[in-house]
Amino acid sequence: MKKNTVAQLSIPAVAHGHSNGDSTFTSTPGSVTTLERWLAHKILEITGNPPVCIVLWNGDEIAVANNQPVARLIVRDRGALYRLMLNPNLNFGDLYSVGRLDVEGDLRRFLETVYSGISTDRGIYGFKRLWKFLHTRPRANTLAGSRNNIHHHYDIGNDFYALWLDEAMQYTCAYFPDTRLTLEQAQIAKMDHVARKLQLKPGDTVVEAGCGWGGLARHMARHYGVTVRAYNISHEQVDFARGQAKAEGLRDRVEYIEDDYRNIAGKYDVFVSVGMLEHVGTAHYPELGEVIHRCLAPNGRGLIHSIGRNKPDLMNAWVEKRIFPGAYPATLKEMMTIFEGRGFSVLDVENLRLHYTKTLEHWLARFDQHADKIEGMFDQYFVRAWRLYLAGSGAAFNSGSLQLFQVGFTRGKNNQLPSSRAHLYR
Amino acid sequence: MKKNTVAQLSIPAVAHGHSNGDSTFTSTPGSVTTLERWLAHKILEITGNPPVCIVLWNGDEIAVANNQPVARLIVRDRGALYRLMLNPNLNFGDLYSVGRLDVEGDLRRFLETVYSGISTDRGIYGFKRLWKFLHTRPRANTLAGSRNNIHHHYDIGNDFYALWLDEAMQYTCAYFPDTRLTLEQAQIAKMDHVARKLQLKPGDTVVEAGCGWGGLARHMARHYGVTVRAYNISHEQVDFARGQAKAEGLRDRVEYIEDDYRNIAGKYDVFVSVGMLEHVGTAHYPELGEVIHRCLAPNGRGLIHSIGRNKPDLMNAWVEKRIFPGAYPATLKEMMTIFEGRGFSVLDVENLRLHYTKTLEHWLARFDQHADKIEGMFDQYFVRAWRLYLAGSGAAFNSGSLQLFQVGFTRGKNNQLPSSRAHLYR
Repeated sequence: MKKNTVAQLSIPAVAHGHSNGDSTFTSTPGSVTTLERWLAHKILEITGNPPVCIVLWNGDEIAVANNQPVARLIVRDRGALYRLMLNPNLNFGDLYSVGRLDVEGDLRRFLETVYSGISTDRGIYGFKRLWKFLHTRPRANTLAGSRNNIHHHYDIGNDFYALWLDEAMQYTCAYFPDTRLTLEQAQIAKMDHVARKLQLKPGDTVVEAGCGWGGLARHMARHYGVTVRAYNISHEQVDFARGQAKAEGLRDRVEYIEDDYRNIAGKYDVFVSVGMLEHVGTAHYPELGEVIHRCLAPNGRGLIHSIGRNKPDLMNAWVEKRIFPGAYPATLKEMMTIFEGRGFSVLDVENLRLHYTKTLEHWLARFDQHADKIEGMFDQYFVRAWRLYLAGSGAAFNSGSLQLFQVGFTRGKNNQLPSSRAHLYR
Repeated sequence: MKKNTVAQLSIPAVAHGHSNGDSTFTSTPGSVTTLERWLAHKILEITGNPPVCIVLWNGDEIAVANNQPVARLIVRDRGALYRLMLNPNLNFGDLYSVGRLDVEGDLRRFLETVYSGISTDRGIYGFKRLWKFLHTRPRANTLAGSRNNIHHHYDIGNDFYALWLDEAMQYTCAYFPDTRLTLEQAQIAKMDHVARKLQLKPGDTVVEAGCGWGGLARHMARHYGVTVRAYNISHEQVDFARGQAKAEGLRDRVEYIEDDYRNIAGKYDVFVSVGMLEHVGTAHYPELGEVIHRCLAPNGRGLIHSIGRNKPDLMNAWVEKRIFPGAYPATLKEMMTIFEGRGFSVLDVENLRLHYTKTLEHWLARFDQHADKIEGMFDQYFVRAWRLYLAGSGAAFNSGSLQLFQVGFTRGKNNQLPSSRAHLYR
């Protein structure tokens, strides 16, 4: 890989300290000190001695004996090693993006191996404590903050997302009841699964909080005879969604509103939100509960689909900082705050974790197919960062570090409930 | 109804204060004062002005105008009125049991009407606050405490329960995917639903925490080829369960252990607990999580089936005091404490609330069919108390005051997950 210069980079210069910031380390550029070897061993130890080989800048290989490596982590300069040791959660991503770290072998498998090692209870001391401490807090999701956070991620270009998402532009977990489904089929299966859980019937009014490019809203209107009002604060997405609704002749049944979920007005039979809760922030969960309480009809049904956790933990620091500002994956316990405040009755929770592993495999494969084109649209560092993000997310779902929850609910007094969930599987 | 004497009663004498404790009220026995009329009106007001008519001991009828009454609440003496006003949660049950209060009309519908009225946010002041305050805390579920609490309810006689439970003696919510199922069919459907959720396969080892009369353990062993070790601290139930297992030739595959769930030993592929969590107490949830962590195999599956709430509230005070000491119905948020501590992954939550309404209808109908026999086994006050308990529970589930949650889970790293829940509905 050719040497990077700061000027080329689309990600912040903080990651490129090797030209100046690391000048305190005075050893010869090509050599490796005893301390540095020890640090490399320590990194393996703290991550649970994964089957990974660390290759240092002078060619030295550090690995745990008897561990057949699944991948090789190439450390291209000593500054990268020190930065990695100091705050791997944040710095791994930046160093990898600019090529000061590299992975030879299967990137997702490498990340999964390391995630699995880190998530054990072993070695909660020293550096591992420091890493936890350095885990940055997600940025606030105030009305203005949310707009900035969402703009950061979703408004980088519909053309870019169109290269690797399905035709309906669903940027949320697909549903693979049969693993042989294509991504297109699995995204349609997801929308139908959600629609069935919501017991949609012709004439129902639906409000959607955080509608992405509007695919679910159009699908529900077209196939279930409902009218949908869908909210989103991403200007580019709303623009796209409106254009699609017009092209598909659905303008009388689907209305896209460029506004925050907190400003939802009106009464609806159904509330649905797919992939927005990650951006809401736990501090705003009671407020979200109030919004639902305000807008849901007496026997209304609702569903929230969101990335989550088995136990509380922040979003990966690098992902939160560079990819998804303000994002936080909640535990079910945290999510329940939304419902308990107003006595909503949770009817159904389904965990679709491995469906997201599969979805991300599809996305990464398509992304890689279009890597050259994407590099042309942005640059090589963008490509590396996004590949890391997609592979890392896949690893997180596959290793059980992240979950995907669909929570179906209704008002506490609604007795119009189906006698079983068999209707979801007919 | 003939006049009760304290000597006849199987429930505490505290309920019978009309002969002495109320002597401070000096009005003529048969008359009704203005204060007493006002109190009766107040009771209706605080319970949300339900369509109920209160008939006082002199024949006076108190009702909200324009409300067609669904039932008449007969107050047989002034002491009953004062006691009801003071602490209805506790005293209604006692007064009804001894016949100082009576309900003409559909008892469950009456209770449902009142529950619905009470559960609104209106009128949280004065007496309603006092009622909340007087809501007694459930008794502790220490090892010794649990034994007393469980003995109180479950060891009053297998013959009694056999009169109104199904053949397999399931004293937990049945499953009615088709409302025309008989109670027997619905209890078998429940056991199969649980077994499918647990993905039982021949050779699996199962541990059951709180096994009642052991019906589920025998069903799983017989129909799914698993071996089961089932724990229960009720001596009478374990005795019965062992006898049944022997009679059915299942002694080599089902072992009943008279011990507390906290003493579960060994490793198992499956952990299951149906109807025990109500007796565990939230303070012990982390401990329960530790027990499951200790006994579950790496890719083990688990299920907890329990009565619950949409928002935190104590068990009805009278039910907790007279019927189910130590019982508490948890919210999902509270239940999640069990799983989060050890990073278990919740895969599936199903709310079967209306299935419990249906189950309780069956139980009450059978109970009423055998009322004479039960009165012979105990006395008329026992019959009245249990009828109230069964009707009241039905009302609580039907009005949304109580929920029934089945929570399926596994270890966080288990990737051997079914691709959908369709297998539950084949």
